[in-house]
Amino acid sequence: VRASVLQSAYRLLVRNGLSNLTIADVAADSGVHETTIYRRWKNPLVLAGEACLAAMAEAIPPPNTGRLRSDLIDLAERIIKVLEGPSGRALLDICRIDEAKVNATRASFFQARFAAVAEIFTNAVQRGEWEGSVDYKFALEMLVAPIYFRALITQQPLKAWPAAAAVDLILAGLGTQTLAE
Amino acid sequence: VRASVLQSAYRLLVRNGLSNLTIADVAADSGVHETTIYRRWKNPLVLAGEACLAAMAEAIPPPNTGRLRSDLIDLAERIIKVLEGPSGRALLDICRIDEAKVNATRASFFQARFAAVAEIFTNAVQRGEWEGSVDYKFALEMLVAPIYFRALITQQPLKAWPAAAAVDLILAGLGTQTLAE
Repeated sequence: VRASVLQSAYRLLVRNGLSNLTIADVAADSGVHETTIYRRWKNPLVLAGEACLAAMAEAIPPPNTGRLRSDLIDLAERIIKVLEGPSGRALLDICRIDEAKVNATRASFFQARFAAVAEIFTNAVQRGEWEGSVDYKFALEMLVAPIYFRALITQQPLKAWPAAAAVDLILAGLGTQTLAE
Repeated sequence: VRASVLQSAYRLLVRNGLSNLTIADVAADSGVHETTIYRRWKNPLVLAGEACLAAMAEAIPPPNTGRLRSDLIDLAERIIKVLEGPSGRALLDICRIDEAKVNATRASFFQARFAAVAEIFTNAVQRGEWEGSVDYKFALEMLVAPIYFRALITQQPLKAWPAAAAVDLILAGLGTQTLAE
């Protein structure tokens, strides 16, 4: 039921926009009863937030390219692609909402995402590519934040963001000792 | 006239919030005629955006501590202080607006701010503290973005952001050769 509601909500959200998302439409599209949806998600904003973030998690699995550097570049580029794609507008609208429940959904989503993506670093350690520990949340915030900052605040083109240079800066700053090719 | 309108708008914005800002109130508070304000700013959102960003520029002059590292830390900490202060809510509300004129105001504001703050780096070169050139916009986006990302998107506490560690990461990544103390 949950997956079906979230999929319907996401489809309608991308098609019609955040301000046109209604629980009634999601009920009709998913075949789940309206009261069931209201009981669980309370309002369209909360539902939109959860649907959009779940879709993003699905669209961006943790990369596993075999190298830490290319994993991080891949991650940054996938985020840029999603934000510039058809669901980008809906996702950015969710980021613009300042409402307690949506804020809480978004906050826990990003914490969960950072934890899931942390395997990029543990994989690198297992490959012997990385020595020592790393504050992966700190590294991921440095990686991800400038992309959202451009999309939401400075309106600079995401495609022009030097993702590889940012990854190199972060890796140099973290003192990684990547093995020679 | 412009300064007086912006000051009134900012004062009312911080006191009453973005959704309660009206051109009529700004006219009454500033003593500038309503039609004059409408002619120049078109609507309360645009006026609020310009007022809020002007106030931020005034609250955060480019630091000049005598060292590049402490200049950058100072800058990050001042931004955090402003965002957590009484005008933080209004400024973040402006960042959440997705309206063409406000977006354009905000985009050009940040470009102008980055250009103004670039003197941190040119000062460091003049002091002999820094060798070679630096993409100051890139460095400043890396510095500033995580603070806004926390405030707007992940709702993590700004005070907990390791500003000094972020500066050290950026400086190490840029390959700065700061002189020994």
